[in-house]
Amino acid sequence: MTKTTDPKKIDPCTLVLFGASGNLSRVKLMPSLFRLDAAGRLPEQMAILSVGRGEVTREAWLADIKGMLDAKFKKGYDQTVFERFIARNHYHANAPTDADAFTKMKANLADEKVFPQNLAYFLSVRPVDFAPVVEQLSGVGLLDETNHWRRVVIEKPFGTDLASAQALQASITKHLKESQIYRIDHYLGKSALQNIMLQRFTNTLLEPIWNKDFIDHVQITNTEMLGVGERTQFYDSTGALRDMIQSHILQTMALTAMELPKDLSPDSIRAEKIKVLEAIRPIPVADLKHNAFRAQYATGEVQGEKVPGYLEELGDKTSVVETYAALKLFVDNPRWQGVPFYIRTAKRLHDADTRISIRFKKSALQLAGGTEQNWLMLGIQPRECIKMEIQSKIPGLDIKTRTIQMDAANRQDGDESIDAYEALLLNLMEGDNSLYLHISEVEAQWRLVDPVVKAWAVDKAPVCQYPAGSADPETSKVIFEHEDQFWRYSIELGGDKH
Amino acid sequence: MTKTTDPKKIDPCTLVLFGASGNLSRVKLMPSLFRLDAAGRLPEQMAILSVGRGEVTREAWLADIKGMLDAKFKKGYDQTVFERFIARNHYHANAPTDADAFTKMKANLADEKVFPQNLAYFLSVRPVDFAPVVEQLSGVGLLDETNHWRRVVIEKPFGTDLASAQALQASITKHLKESQIYRIDHYLGKSALQNIMLQRFTNTLLEPIWNKDFIDHVQITNTEMLGVGERTQFYDSTGALRDMIQSHILQTMALTAMELPKDLSPDSIRAEKIKVLEAIRPIPVADLKHNAFRAQYATGEVQGEKVPGYLEELGDKTSVVETYAALKLFVDNPRWQGVPFYIRTAKRLHDADTRISIRFKKSALQLAGGTEQNWLMLGIQPRECIKMEIQSKIPGLDIKTRTIQMDAANRQDGDESIDAYEALLLNLMEGDNSLYLHISEVEAQWRLVDPVVKAWAVDKAPVCQYPAGSADPETSKVIFEHEDQFWRYSIELGGDKH
Repeated sequence: MTKTTDPKKIDPCTLVLFGASGNLSRVKLMPSLFRLDAAGRLPEQMAILSVGRGEVTREAWLADIKGMLDAKFKKGYDQTVFERFIARNHYHANAPTDADAFTKMKANLADEKVFPQNLAYFLSVRPVDFAPVVEQLSGVGLLDETNHWRRVVIEKPFGTDLASAQALQASITKHLKESQIYRIDHYLGKSALQNIMLQRFTNTLLEPIWNKDFIDHVQITNTEMLGVGERTQFYDSTGALRDMIQSHILQTMALTAMELPKDLSPDSIRAEKIKVLEAIRPIPVADLKHNAFRAQYATGEVQGEKVPGYLEELGDKTSVVETYAALKLFVDNPRWQGVPFYIRTAKRLHDADTRISIRFKKSALQLAGGTEQNWLMLGIQPRECIKMEIQSKIPGLDIKTRTIQMDAANRQDGDESIDAYEALLLNLMEGDNSLYLHISEVEAQWRLVDPVVKAWAVDKAPVCQYPAGSADPETSKVIFEHEDQFWRYSIELGGDKH
Repeated sequence: MTKTTDPKKIDPCTLVLFGASGNLSRVKLMPSLFRLDAAGRLPEQMAILSVGRGEVTREAWLADIKGMLDAKFKKGYDQTVFERFIARNHYHANAPTDADAFTKMKANLADEKVFPQNLAYFLSVRPVDFAPVVEQLSGVGLLDETNHWRRVVIEKPFGTDLASAQALQASITKHLKESQIYRIDHYLGKSALQNIMLQRFTNTLLEPIWNKDFIDHVQITNTEMLGVGERTQFYDSTGALRDMIQSHILQTMALTAMELPKDLSPDSIRAEKIKVLEAIRPIPVADLKHNAFRAQYATGEVQGEKVPGYLEELGDKTSVVETYAALKLFVDNPRWQGVPFYIRTAKRLHDADTRISIRFKKSALQLAGGTEQNWLMLGIQPRECIKMEIQSKIPGLDIKTRTIQMDAANRQDGDESIDAYEALLLNLMEGDNSLYLHISEVEAQWRLVDPVVKAWAVDKAPVCQYPAGSADPETSKVIFEHEDQFWRYSIELGGDKH
């Protein structure tokens, strides 16, 4: 199956980049736009208007962009592409709440020779500024679609809980239709995430066994060896559940559990993701301890180096914010009835690994000593791969089996390595929002985690500690449905030992 | 699952080896018995009585055995084991039709101190002597099971067509019950063959998709780069169909297609194999050319070396005996209705490969350009492995898939390498005949190929020629059911190109 974008089919457009001098823009957005240009993916008529607070001349801004590219592409880049790219770039000074500045920006943008009139606004600004910027844009008529399209990208997070997400939604939908709003979850720009759906549905070897009849349970895992680092303040106001599970991990789960869409149109794909997210059974707060688990890393050793615990880094011994979060979820639909999804994220675990691990039910033939169950695993990072573990006869006179692991790389030598934002920016210009979140997805995700966030916030009892660099805390097992279920330790052969 | 043999549970017994001075005995049987002894697999009380035509002293025979072991185990062997093994060995001169000699043998075997009284006769003699030896054994009372068991191994071939097989069966069943008869197909002694059943039935990832709902067709392939060599006379009276397909390949197909046995007892396993062999639809002789194909290798090049064609080697330009044979078969049962099994064997092909290749039907999602279908392959030799080919996203901005191959070795470094005859001899002593052929299997196999053998024998038109070292002859495609079916070229990634 194939979907290739022809840049000639992308409408001439201008990308208006709010927060252009910020970190995301410098490290991700500008370099991604440059790479798209180098790959011949941008339409000929495409301009970039960077918007920042600082009063900077265009020349100074172009020099700044050159610095961003130099920092990112240490091996250099094509000079012709650079000149083409630089010619697309412009600068406009603007504070988000300064109505005059928006009026001026409108006047600037009116120059059709410089700026194609389809406008995509990328809001890489503080979350508190999302609604005001939309309001200002609307106020000066810059969201009016009478003659040209207008699209607005909202960076994450879209709210910090269900209520704030709904409030933000209420604000911006005064000025925008759902089809104009592009909510970021950059995980969806990863090729490995898109591959989940493709591998599931384009392979007869996989699709028929992907359901409750054959699957014992599913694990969706995101672990890091890194700690919170310098983000202590942000992290302590967020926690692992909101930082990773509410967004990336629930999206990964949606792609793992969704039904086959009727076609690959953005609407069809999102409709199925919404359906499955809304089919996740609410977590029973009355029995939270069997359905959700949290912990904090203590001092320990990671890759041979002593590292401090979370509370030490924070300098606050009373925080109950989790650096390890695990949930047990059920999808109440015919495909998944009764199959637990165990999802977890952790900092400072023994391994950095993002993957989907599916354990299958016992096989038809289970004789003496036969307790091993098949696993199917999709590696997302660091290695993009698919693995299957099955039982095979040990050569020799006895009838004995052992586990062997079939393995294939999804990413091979010479494959293009793109940033998730390249895919997201390209889709934005194409008007394909399948890699962006629908408000129903955002709401479903908040609806699911909110009760847990709130229950954890009020429970001030000391949180379970795990040594940095260790495996899952023993007490996390309390969420498993069955005694024979356990966290898979790693994606490698033997990683099912516990 | 596990089945390990405890040598203490094997009854004390004597193996009476007819044709002991022949090639099979020298190269396979004696070395296999020695290895079983070295592995501690033989019961303490176990003797070997070699029977040959020559008048040889025991001492001379023991020296002969030492020569066989020296030739086989060039790296040497354990002296203690050697002495133990030699002490088990005895010799008796006997012509198959000499009644006196059988009477003397009975008297010899009566010495209980030397020969445990359970007797297994291994008939490694000319096929024409199978029935006479059984008759003579019976005549002197050596098949009488009143006090001890008696088992008879019949080497292959069991007949040269259905009628001769049934005649042989009629002869020997005057003296033997079915449970006493052990018919050899040494392929069944291969660990890789036994693994087919184990992998199918102990893996939830495989069993559910192993049927007509998901499988497009099955290929069972046995190709060699070797030619007929010095066996021209034998070969020209046999042909590829009888030499390989009637026996090994149909057994491989039975293991691939059989239903789950109700347990792993020999009777249960053979019952399922018989059922599936008997469910194979007779080949329609009236439309033979769409169901069976034969060819002969012509001069060509194999691994860089010029080699002569079959007719040149034979020195007979009129032979129509095939060195390449392919059949299309259908199994008329609920699991396999409508699924073609394409089975083929060939000498002097481009590759030496024995494997099962299963192509799956098209997947749920088939968009533009999506024509690749999944393959699952079990490698038998030279490499014992399992491979699955699936579609996976090519990393990058476009939605494009490519084929990737998951691979796992069924045989790993350090695994025991046993000869098929070790397993067969051990099972013989244990009284486990699951690795031996039931008469119903032999009959079903002959019933299937006989009409083709006969039709080919009378059709004296020149046979299709293929250059030695080439791929399948183009005209072999005439047996495929569908235009999009083709011989898989190799087990490696890309081997589905044609």
